[in-house]
Amino acid sequence: MSEDAPEPWRTGITTYDDTHIWIHGYDVTEMMRETSFSAVIFLLHKGRLPHEGERRIIDAILIASADHGPGSPSAAAARTVATGNRRAPEAALAAGVLATGDAHGGAGLACIELIITALARINDSGATIADAARATVEDARREGRRLPGLGHRTHSTDPRTAVLFGLAEQYRLAGSGVQFMREMERAAARVIKPLPINVDGAIAAVLHDLGFPPVLGKLFFIMGRVAGLSAQVVEEYTRERPMRVRVPVAYDGPAPRPLPRLAKEEV
Amino acid sequence: MSEDAPEPWRTGITTYDDTHIWIHGYDVTEMMRETSFSAVIFLLHKGRLPHEGERRIIDAILIASADHGPGSPSAAAARTVATGNRRAPEAALAAGVLATGDAHGGAGLACIELIITALARINDSGATIADAARATVEDARREGRRLPGLGHRTHSTDPRTAVLFGLAEQYRLAGSGVQFMREMERAAARVIKPLPINVDGAIAAVLHDLGFPPVLGKLFFIMGRVAGLSAQVVEEYTRERPMRVRVPVAYDGPAPRPLPRLAKEEV
Amino acid sequence: MSEDAPEPWRTGITTYDDTHIWIHGYDVTEMMRETSFSAVIFLLHKGRLPHEGERRIIDAILIASADHGPGSPSAAAARTVATGNRRAPEAALAAGVLATGDAHGGAGLACIELIITALARINDSGATIADAARATVEDARREGRRLPGLGHRTHSTDPRTAVLFGLAEQYRLAGSGVQFMREMERAAARVIKPLPINVDGAIAAVLHDLGFPPVLGKLFFIMGRVAGLSAQVVEEYTRERPMRVRVPVAYDGPAPRPLPRLAKEEV
Amino acid sequence: MSEDAPEPWRTGITTYDDTHIWIHGYDVTEMMRETSFSAVIFLLHKGRLPHEGERRIIDAILIASADHGPGSPSAAAARTVATGNRRAPEAALAAGVLATGDAHGGAGLACIELIITALARINDSGATIADAARATVEDARREGRRLPGLGHRTHSTDPRTAVLFGLAEQYRLAGSGVQFMREMERAAARVIKPLPINVDGAIAAVLHDLGFPPVLGKLFFIMGRVAGLSAQVVEEYTRERPMRVRVPVAYDGPAPRPLPRLAKEEV
Repeated sequence: MSEDAPEPWRTGITTYDDTHIWIHGYDVTEMMRETSFSAVIFLLHKGRLPHEGERRIIDAILIASADHGPGSPSAAAARTVATGNRRAPEAALAAGVLATGDAHGGAGLACIELIITALARINDSGATIADAARATVEDARREGRRLPGLGHRTHSTDPRTAVLFGLAEQYRLAGSGVQFMREMERAAARVIKPLPINVDGAIAAVLHDLGFPPVLGKLFFIMGRVAGLSAQVVEEYTRERPMRVRVPVAYDGPAPRPLPRLAKEEV
Repeated sequence: MSEDAPEPWRTGITTYDDTHIWIHGYDVTEMMRETSFSAVIFLLHKGRLPHEGERRIIDAILIASADHGPGSPSAAAARTVATGNRRAPEAALAAGVLATGDAHGGAGLACIELIITALARINDSGATIADAARATVEDARREGRRLPGLGHRTHSTDPRTAVLFGLAEQYRLAGSGVQFMREMERAAARVIKPLPINVDGAIAAVLHDLGFPPVLGKLFFIMGRVAGLSAQVVEEYTRERPMRVRVPVAYDGPAPRPLPRLAKEEV
Repeated sequence: MSEDAPEPWRTGITTYDDTHIWIHGYDVTEMMRETSFSAVIFLLHKGRLPHEGERRIIDAILIASADHGPGSPSAAAARTVATGNRRAPEAALAAGVLATGDAHGGAGLACIELIITALARINDSGATIADAARATVEDARREGRRLPGLGHRTHSTDPRTAVLFGLAEQYRLAGSGVQFMREMERAAARVIKPLPINVDGAIAAVLHDLGFPPVLGKLFFIMGRVAGLSAQVVEEYTRERPMRVRVPVAYDGPAPRPLPRLAKEEV
Repeated sequence: MSEDAPEPWRTGITTYDDTHIWIHGYDVTEMMRETSFSAVIFLLHKGRLPHEGERRIIDAILIASADHGPGSPSAAAARTVATGNRRAPEAALAAGVLATGDAHGGAGLACIELIITALARINDSGATIADAARATVEDARREGRRLPGLGHRTHSTDPRTAVLFGLAEQYRLAGSGVQFMREMERAAARVIKPLPINVDGAIAAVLHDLGFPPVLGKLFFIMGRVAGLSAQVVEEYTRERPMRVRVPVAYDGPAPRPLPRLAKEEV
């Protein structure tokens, strides 16, 4: 009737005693004095503190993801919730986080998976990264699939890609992920149409080369975007009245009709 | 370093063994064969099965709350999340639930609290329900507060109120809550302007008279609305493409400007 | 800079005017008086009102999903959120909804997909349902995949399966989905081990035979479970103090260690 | 039947054209190269870039909030959702965000409100900050209210408080908020019992003195905590099997009992 006695929850990340908290062994108060939030984000996910170049790339990824105005699905969802729920900002932020799925902000995850799959093929076959990129593009075209990390609904060239790749190269941290995405952009331009590497693809390439698994492609986007969602929700509370969102609706269902006898008899 | 050994979580609602599940002592399989979902909702929150009139009122409350089209904040939030997140319908439903706060769907909670507070005054003072309603309206006008349960942004008379009150009266389940809301509507018409009892107010009055605490004013709305959110999300997945939501944006912040030296030096 | 002018959101479900709300053309107030919540849930997703047998199956599915005590991941998540957030019950309910993923409550979706895929094979090949079930089980065993809809972590025989199948047969609504699940249970017992059809599998079979698409396998679970989550959250608020949840933790990460010079220099 | 034509959503935060994104007028790519995530968080909420001391305090606040192990309600909720939902990390993160309410992580909001209210009294009356703190403590004791920002369930002295106050003083950014919290701690020790300023209270004091409104007391906690939730969810996916969470349950409701005739007749 009752559940089994619970086993302890194992963790290797954070522990504490009465007067300390340690993250991967480092005292939180020491880190508050001596390092930055982006360094601690790296630590939380890697188990070690970043070198300067790694930290600057993490900062750039989080800044690149932070905000894209109220029209992105995550901000629109957060502000729509805020308009009905003025007292629980956590509800609005959570709704914004939930909008980051496969279609919005989730391309990073899919793109790291794509890079890993494509590079695994190379290791097996002796092909070059350019071969793998071309094969990936051709498979996608044949199967009518979109390529994650390429193209953007509002930018013809995503301005954030060059900065991320530039930082990765400046600190000699660009590897096979960055190279693969560049080859894939080249192959797509030949085989499909010009599809510039978007910020999801750039983040994916750089995170892959820093050794992060696919799920971080989505999680870094969320960690950055939460900052923008927070600002969007405060703006909603400050500038707008409750229940202000108006959606233009076109109803095309059945016209009013009488309830059938059947339903009436069943009560 | 580790937490205290956990105490068992106490519950008086549901238990099970290898081949049974019981809710408040009733076998779930027997209820699946012999009763209705709305009866089990009543049971879950009251600890006993409903009489016919109670069950019909619960059904009516849940139907009244079920859907109001894609333009309500809850449905708009759910569909906005669905447009970015096509594979996790639970995320879209959760966002819709989160939009039910103080301004949307939360009036029921505030309204039951208002009824309880106002009726407590009567018990203390010997005033009538009409006196209490008038005092409540006058306090609200003086303090510039909106009265929960009165008025609606899209309906001049909420068509659902008469049905709920009619059912409550037909089964002799209308009590001081229904009476108070009617007196408050009357007082508001005299003191402020015609503000018909909306569905939140009607649900609040009836739930109060069934003996439910304020929080159920919001929870019944959510239980009903989840059905509409589910249908709205399926329609979004079925009829629309990903990322289709377009929000018309008017930017009125600072024009593009150079980054100050300060920020540059800090990296 | 601003988004495109938005197109109207199309919907065929619900519309309203100043004094009416119609769901698929039926007046909500008429349905409040004449029918039940489960009938309206059917209407919202099918576009027509249910026959008696269909309505009773929907009721049974929702009752079967309603609650399984505080130890299920959805209720545990809802109550954990409620312990930190005592004023926003919508937040606790949303967390419970979010716990219904692939591993918990999501088997219904996967199982309807499995049924559709397996039955499509039959149509192509002329094999029997028993052949398709056997092939499905053998594929799963070979690939080390779990079969959705079979087995349960706490019940050796799920008591809810027989009731659902009994109702479907009583109203002549059991079709190829129910038959397939029975054959799959039989094949699994021979090829793997006794794995009784669980409630997710039974719901999936019956929903398939009522003509619902896979996503409803998860959505009906959520619509039912929200009722239990609501009761669990009220119990948490009523009986327990804030922040009461204690998780037993075993830390196995690095011991306390000094911050490296590197991190210090970077501030 | 359809909603009104929607007005544009006004925003003063972020805008973009085909090749740029600007936050409060600053080019995002320039900020990716030249500044840090914490500086952009400050910018998003303040409309200007921070001075060095402000940025270091923001970093310290976010680090202080980042993680407290799997036993905090936010991490426990996130990991419980992750155990049922292995494919939507956004769902687990959202659940963790939702656990930050009044009782967990929400003290910052309440504490900034308390500081503002208490300091407003001073301005009106000519009392000192010490007077205001004493009055606040005495009111709380008399009314049996807890004081937000004082006391902690696991730390006798919160190690993070001294660091935050030290940074604020080092950069001459400590003002009336820090002073008020110190006086309140002193008054509480005399009037109630030793209740050290906890991290919520320290963050509240410092944010108040940086000019942030109360809601940021909760939002900064969430922005920091999302980093820890992300790491906790990845650890859950990596180290644990689905559905592993076991809650010890003690059922104390009614024993199994037959369904009353009433319920049977109503189907």
